[in-house]
Amino acid sequence: MAELKVVVAGAGGRMGAAIIRAITQTAGLALHAALDRPGSAALAQDAGLFAGLGALHVAITEDIDAALAGADIVIDFTAPEASVALAAKAAARGLVHIIGTTGCSEADDAAIAASARAGACIVKSGNFSMGMVVLANLVEKAAAALADYDIEILEMHHNRKVDAPSGSALLLGEAAAKGREISLKTHSVRVRDGHTGPREAGSIGFATLRGGTVVGDHSVILAGPGERIELGHRAEDRSIFASGAARAALWASQQPPGLYSMVDVLGLND
Amino acid sequence: MAELKVVVAGAGGRMGAAIIRAITQTAGLALHAALDRPGSAALAQDAGLFAGLGALHVAITEDIDAALAGADIVIDFTAPEASVALAAKAAARGLVHIIGTTGCSEADDAAIAASARAGACIVKSGNFSMGMVVLANLVEKAAAALADYDIEILEMHHNRKVDAPSGSALLLGEAAAKGREISLKTHSVRVRDGHTGPREAGSIGFATLRGGTVVGDHSVILAGPGERIELGHRAEDRSIFASGAARAALWASQQPPGLYSMVDVLGLND
Amino acid sequence: MAELKVVVAGAGGRMGAAIIRAITQTAGLALHAALDRPGSAALAQDAGLFAGLGALHVAITEDIDAALAGADIVIDFTAPEASVALAAKAAARGLVHIIGTTGCSEADDAAIAASARAGACIVKSGNFSMGMVVLANLVEKAAAALADYDIEILEMHHNRKVDAPSGSALLLGEAAAKGREISLKTHSVRVRDGHTGPREAGSIGFATLRGGTVVGDHSVILAGPGERIELGHRAEDRSIFASGAARAALWASQQPPGLYSMVDVLGLND
Amino acid sequence: MAELKVVVAGAGGRMGAAIIRAITQTAGLALHAALDRPGSAALAQDAGLFAGLGALHVAITEDIDAALAGADIVIDFTAPEASVALAAKAAARGLVHIIGTTGCSEADDAAIAASARAGACIVKSGNFSMGMVVLANLVEKAAAALADYDIEILEMHHNRKVDAPSGSALLLGEAAAKGREISLKTHSVRVRDGHTGPREAGSIGFATLRGGTVVGDHSVILAGPGERIELGHRAEDRSIFASGAARAALWASQQPPGLYSMVDVLGLND
Repeated sequence: MAELKVVVAGAGGRMGAAIIRAITQTAGLALHAALDRPGSAALAQDAGLFAGLGALHVAITEDIDAALAGADIVIDFTAPEASVALAAKAAARGLVHIIGTTGCSEADDAAIAASARAGACIVKSGNFSMGMVVLANLVEKAAAALADYDIEILEMHHNRKVDAPSGSALLLGEAAAKGREISLKTHSVRVRDGHTGPREAGSIGFATLRGGTVVGDHSVILAGPGERIELGHRAEDRSIFASGAARAALWASQQPPGLYSMVDVLGLND
Repeated sequence: MAELKVVVAGAGGRMGAAIIRAITQTAGLALHAALDRPGSAALAQDAGLFAGLGALHVAITEDIDAALAGADIVIDFTAPEASVALAAKAAARGLVHIIGTTGCSEADDAAIAASARAGACIVKSGNFSMGMVVLANLVEKAAAALADYDIEILEMHHNRKVDAPSGSALLLGEAAAKGREISLKTHSVRVRDGHTGPREAGSIGFATLRGGTVVGDHSVILAGPGERIELGHRAEDRSIFASGAARAALWASQQPPGLYSMVDVLGLND
Repeated sequence: MAELKVVVAGAGGRMGAAIIRAITQTAGLALHAALDRPGSAALAQDAGLFAGLGALHVAITEDIDAALAGADIVIDFTAPEASVALAAKAAARGLVHIIGTTGCSEADDAAIAASARAGACIVKSGNFSMGMVVLANLVEKAAAALADYDIEILEMHHNRKVDAPSGSALLLGEAAAKGREISLKTHSVRVRDGHTGPREAGSIGFATLRGGTVVGDHSVILAGPGERIELGHRAEDRSIFASGAARAALWASQQPPGLYSMVDVLGLND
Repeated sequence: MAELKVVVAGAGGRMGAAIIRAITQTAGLALHAALDRPGSAALAQDAGLFAGLGALHVAITEDIDAALAGADIVIDFTAPEASVALAAKAAARGLVHIIGTTGCSEADDAAIAASARAGACIVKSGNFSMGMVVLANLVEKAAAALADYDIEILEMHHNRKVDAPSGSALLLGEAAAKGREISLKTHSVRVRDGHTGPREAGSIGFATLRGGTVVGDHSVILAGPGERIELGHRAEDRSIFASGAARAALWASQQPPGLYSMVDVLGLND
């Protein structure tokens, strides 16, 4: 079987480097081109050396059309504007587009969905670790089955993380809200301090810990009378997100155009 | 609505007393009779006083037929032989029979299934807590979705528990084995000590902690490259098992005869 | 040995009832009198019946002087003003005074210390469970030994608790601050939401979970480069606080007047 | 200040490579020589390249005397026989000798102690992570303070680990036994399966989990009536053991000859 040719967007960042390493470790995938934004200090460097590997003889470039020429797949953990633009080009060429970008607006998501209808095969997810995707699926089911249990979501990350709660904590909150058929936005409690009064029934609480070098721990607690369920995920290594994206790429190369999520990749839809 | 008339088997034991308390707290259920085995010291005592409630004017008896006359439901956390006999009588009278008895042989289970076909409406489970039943269901799904992750099952109970691993730990192991479509019996590793060699792929490991007054903690870990999922349950209070049995009784009173599990009661079958 | 005669203040509340039960289960202690505030609905009732025991033939009263006459010990989980007043009376009579009251101001604490100098033998603590007192002691040592690790404190309580963080979480925070020789007040971070920026070095973070019927879980995390220590406590049953107060009473009856803490009772001062 | 000259023994192994990386990252330390056993495939290679760094122009050698000439410190995570021999040579030259070797017999330990009396400055420990050393110290204190609580020790490691329980779990068990002033050997329970009977009072239980790529999690539980303390450690990265050895080397270079442990290095002796 010929190897699938992969373009990595954001190749000059830490996540891009991890994706390049994952590609070299995944049978069936080969690095075809490496993109970074205009002005990046990584431009013109060898993408392999940049990723801490030996030379791969692929120079990091800002020329999107040149990079896409002859490619099969784009893996893209960048920024909303860049991802929307790449999705349109992926549709025009009938490519697979794996999107790990976070922070998209509703308009961004609509534009990406339109590209999927126009011929791109897109997998978009807020977290590409297999374990986290499975966990979110279980949380949705548990939230539905234990409909009157209190739901709390806890996360811990390293001390340099600048926002709270984490995107993955919010993804778990969305899964819980979906299981309850409620809106997370109107039911989440993100802060507790001082005199709070009793817990509001039906709310979804968040709590955040920061410290050390923790890659990412998440826990969803469903607490009812006399018992608790705790559904947790521990990421030991950032490479799981990159290898999940590589897995999604292989899966998507076998699918018709459309918009998919990691739930589809892992076959978790009953 | 008239209240459903419930017979409690094993009324002279700690679990029987908890069931009697749960019945008095459940709208729609009323204590009709209380059974205990011949020779029990509890015979002839008032079942309510025995359960730490006020007098309920129901004397604990060994006369099964007298107890079942006019009843709607039997709740039975006793011993295999007694449960098999009660199931036959429940079939003859078309009663609901809630069975929390553990340690049944395959022959016992076959006899109970036959009674369900003959007209009893039976709910049988190794654990009647809602949270544990939901957890077992999630474990099955996770074991299937993360097919090559290592599965480990940990439990902790109080220091007077005399067997290991707990029945609920084995129930979780069965759920994991079902998700993997393997036999727990041939894949479980119940002891590790000294030079064990590397972990055998595809096995399901058990570990047991004992101490203090812990009602029952269980945890299933699915560990893969760079990440872990942990699915846990904490029981704070034994009353959750009794209230689960009461809930099962109410549900079963609306069903046709047959053999059901708590998965059916909670509507967890997709 | 004659039994020590104990007065329970706040006998009409849930904690007072638990203390009365603990006294009846502790060899060497006997209930002498039961106090409650003027206007309480519990006044004139039998304290034993009120606590879910049989009759103890001790009527709950508002008459402090009558209650203290002939007594050896007062156990008091009430309110700051009441505890300050009781401490003065305990000093005048040379009694043991066990204080579990929370929310005392600095002036209240000064008044209580003055009573200890004037002849009362006082044990005052924010948490009377043995495990929590030991934990706080360990947290202080760990915070000193791992001087540059990030400290985070997590707690979970039932869904009816009205304030956050819990008093015991703050007690653990004070222990950590003492180990670091810093002020908790100026170093605590009690809320994280949205764009927080990186974690401030040297701060002590708090996070709060609420749900179900959780009696009280606390965890202190010290996170450094590549590793974490987690020091946790789980309360399964409120009775541990009452039995800790009874233990403190027995210990204090052997001590000279003065102001003690549970650290002294448990002999944790090296 | 001149840098201290460090010899790394076992430089051809995974731990040796980690130690070389730690030395290059520690101000005040410089790699002086790299040893490996006769026959090792790593002999003659550049120690820096072998450790995944750039060239350090230090060839891995089997010539111990040449390596030690002019050195200040030996760091040695090898095998008992090799460590005993190195300790004698360290004593003859008055060197610092950091020993992370496990599995030493009593005779080995006696020989190492003799070398410390003869002029070597030795730090020997079963675990060089700061967090684990602090944890063991806390466990000893907790075991003494909560003298009648049940002690259980749980560990989880990756699926390639070949022995159970881990050396660090045993180190924690020794700390608990020391706090109780009992022998671990005669009080440990390492296996529970089938009909075990109630927990034996005063015993120390072990439980082992294996799976995935877990670097090393340890937890000590002290369970009493109505409450539990849990004292845990999570290692995220093997480099913590190497950096702990480097820290010990810096500390030992300021001490007189003698036999020390990581408890001394971290100043945890009151």
